[in-house]
Amino acid sequence: MLIDDLRAALPADRLVTDVDVVAGYVHDEAEWARHGSPVAVIRPRSAEEVRDVVRLCVRHRAPVVARGAGTGLSGGANAVDGGVVIAFDLMNAIREIDTTERLAVVEPGVVNNDLRAACAHHGLWYPPDPASAPWSTLGGNVATNAGGLCCVKYGVTADYVLGLQMVTGTGELVRLGRRTPKGVAGYDLVRLIVGSEGTLGIVTEVTVRLRPARPPERTVAGFFPSLVDAGRAVAAVGASGIVPSALELIDHHCLRAVDEWKNMGLSVEANAVLLARVDAPGDAGETEAAAILGCFEQTGATWAARSTDQEEADALFEARRLAYPALERLGPVLTEDVCVPTAAVPEMLARVDETAQAHDTRIATIAHAGDGNLHPLLLTPPGDDAARGRAQAAFEQIISDALDLGGTVTGEHGVGLLKRDGLRRELATTVLDLHRAVKDALDPHHILNPGKVLPPRY
Amino acid sequence: MLIDDLRAALPADRLVTDVDVVAGYVHDEAEWARHGSPVAVIRPRSAEEVRDVVRLCVRHRAPVVARGAGTGLSGGANAVDGGVVIAFDLMNAIREIDTTERLAVVEPGVVNNDLRAACAHHGLWYPPDPASAPWSTLGGNVATNAGGLCCVKYGVTADYVLGLQMVTGTGELVRLGRRTPKGVAGYDLVRLIVGSEGTLGIVTEVTVRLRPARPPERTVAGFFPSLVDAGRAVAAVGASGIVPSALELIDHHCLRAVDEWKNMGLSVEANAVLLARVDAPGDAGETEAAAILGCFEQTGATWAARSTDQEEADALFEARRLAYPALERLGPVLTEDVCVPTAAVPEMLARVDETAQAHDTRIATIAHAGDGNLHPLLLTPPGDDAARGRAQAAFEQIISDALDLGGTVTGEHGVGLLKRDGLRRELATTVLDLHRAVKDALDPHHILNPGKVLPPRY
Repeated sequence: MLIDDLRAALPADRLVTDVDVVAGYVHDEAEWARHGSPVAVIRPRSAEEVRDVVRLCVRHRAPVVARGAGTGLSGGANAVDGGVVIAFDLMNAIREIDTTERLAVVEPGVVNNDLRAACAHHGLWYPPDPASAPWSTLGGNVATNAGGLCCVKYGVTADYVLGLQMVTGTGELVRLGRRTPKGVAGYDLVRLIVGSEGTLGIVTEVTVRLRPARPPERTVAGFFPSLVDAGRAVAAVGASGIVPSALELIDHHCLRAVDEWKNMGLSVEANAVLLARVDAPGDAGETEAAAILGCFEQTGATWAARSTDQEEADALFEARRLAYPALERLGPVLTEDVCVPTAAVPEMLARVDETAQAHDTRIATIAHAGDGNLHPLLLTPPGDDAARGRAQAAFEQIISDALDLGGTVTGEHGVGLLKRDGLRRELATTVLDLHRAVKDALDPHHILNPGKVLPPRY
Repeated sequence: MLIDDLRAALPADRLVTDVDVVAGYVHDEAEWARHGSPVAVIRPRSAEEVRDVVRLCVRHRAPVVARGAGTGLSGGANAVDGGVVIAFDLMNAIREIDTTERLAVVEPGVVNNDLRAACAHHGLWYPPDPASAPWSTLGGNVATNAGGLCCVKYGVTADYVLGLQMVTGTGELVRLGRRTPKGVAGYDLVRLIVGSEGTLGIVTEVTVRLRPARPPERTVAGFFPSLVDAGRAVAAVGASGIVPSALELIDHHCLRAVDEWKNMGLSVEANAVLLARVDAPGDAGETEAAAILGCFEQTGATWAARSTDQEEADALFEARRLAYPALERLGPVLTEDVCVPTAAVPEMLARVDETAQAHDTRIATIAHAGDGNLHPLLLTPPGDDAARGRAQAAFEQIISDALDLGGTVTGEHGVGLLKRDGLRRELATTVLDLHRAVKDALDPHHILNPGKVLPPRY
């Protein structure tokens, strides 16, 4: 039995089999994504222990699912029947911050914000900032190629990963990538692994590039009478040639939910709020802020201003970050994650409105508007099966509309379980075949997070 | 016979079999890299024609080598006996420049500088700028993941490729990637293909991200008594937190060769010249330039100044760009391309000096010093076999030293033929096995640029 071999191979404290404790490790935050029952949860303390676990799983042909903080929104970390979950919460050391090479080496369980704080001590900056940054881990960020608020200017997780240590699908512990600023020695397997959601290898260490700390940001806020007006403002910013360091959209559903929870005094007479940040140094920052303010005013903002009050600006961004948990308090939230060309943002927002009406579903929208990445959040009253059915139909409609507008079914949350059908719709059969060929090559026994990402063959 | 099938499948003007004409397509600029004799050179005019050629090569199990301008420096585009070379010189259309989404769609034969010029008309910028930019093509740049001068701040080709159309090793025409700013739908096959040197697929169209045009750059030049002093200046710039938009090193061998050729009046009383550029907007640019000037002065520059004369600054950078062809006039040049951690640049430069002495080889060095990417250029008198032997030994020594210092055997030129042994030394056997598994998966018949990149199995 796999469990007996695991007990024999690992110190006792690495294994969790207590049903109640295991229950905390079997799914992420993706509403309605199914999950299985693992034989055990493993909490390794070293890459070698991970390798040993994978080797046992190879021998038993048992599924192995890696897991960070479980903040994923597509079911990618959900447990599979008969397998193990490897939880990285005990591998959370920042091993190195090299100020000369501007890189950090971390274990997969390091929390995103903890890395950012450690870098700040050295005058350095790790940009990727998913809304889950206070909880999510670098390992999970790598698995999903997490985005965030600042990636409109600074790119996503993949843009920062220089090297990885990982366990392969055949149980080998390997190092991929490099520590040098450039390098083209061999195929870019690092980038192949980043975003592969644990289906091609299990990451045991991450080397990330860092940037020098940047100048303070300036914030510009705008209130708009409709989501579509806000979408036009986003398009205007894009056309201006200014690249903001954040350009976030929040609708009134989200603002109200945050305000009811945290009493932040945010309620505004607007159907959509845009929050922009710019971070060019010196005078240029002022110029950028003024240009964005101009874009907001010219596209129908009912109120727009540069925030001269840092507390106020921080509160608005904090509201953005809290939107998801605030809505979750009200009932199950099905989270969309489509990304469309920036010019299609107004049209996509209009279609989301139509979908909400057509399927009688309450949809609150937050968006990384500057890069066309929309998160319509589909709310359902707890226990209302009919509403759930309508929400699922709306979810599919939003995917259809995004594809119709030249977009993608997932901008940053990953495919996991919830977007497998979407992936099938987005990619040609020939391209899915390439995916399967790569999967077969790197995970020949099909033990790495089976059933995730790739849609089943018909 | 393959040639008969090719004749039957393609319009006559697509086939080149004249031996003298073919001779112009059988190798790149890598000195001493062997090449074979192809059955024909194909000059396709559409992706479908490329697909048809690959399908015939699949049927005949014949090698197929893609080729851009042939400016490569590692033998990656060299012809293979009995196969075809697909030359993309007739597929050189810029299909689209989308100013809203800031992207361009180009055929593989578009010359890098032509794309840059076309973008500039729209206030946009395609950053990757290999020294070969006046001649090299986007297809070749993608195949090698070309770097350049500005990648110290703006990244390499791979950082700009959003999507690809390509022909697979089984003759399917597929689209990979996307046109949206973000997207994580499936594995990052685009990044796997970029830099794979035609061994995993043949690219027939490229979609690249663009940036808004940037403010004018400021230039800072410094003369140093030794390469090692210049290396220390580079390390000081790195530690300053300023990210220059170029930081190039040229030694006196290169300057003299350019000056003798072009009579640019460059001869300087220095063993090493550093050229830095900064491009922060407004006042911040002045601050950056002053900081870099300070770094140069504090590390022993015998002369350093901000260039107030744009012509002079351009001449210095033009000299950098002309270094390689200027040296080539003097005899065969074997080009190194190692990349080391930036802190190791002074030590690596010292070792290159020692290697030149130990192997009695004239070595001229240019370097993208800011990202540790060194190009020692090994010069040999024409027809001197003994010198050639010594140069090859020096070449291997430089590789050894780079690996010893935590570097990589190729920073931007690719593995091709010249760095296959270096790749074997750099990567663990288990990692080479992953490469071979990926190669087998995407090129099951082993027809795509066989013999390149992957070292032969023992």
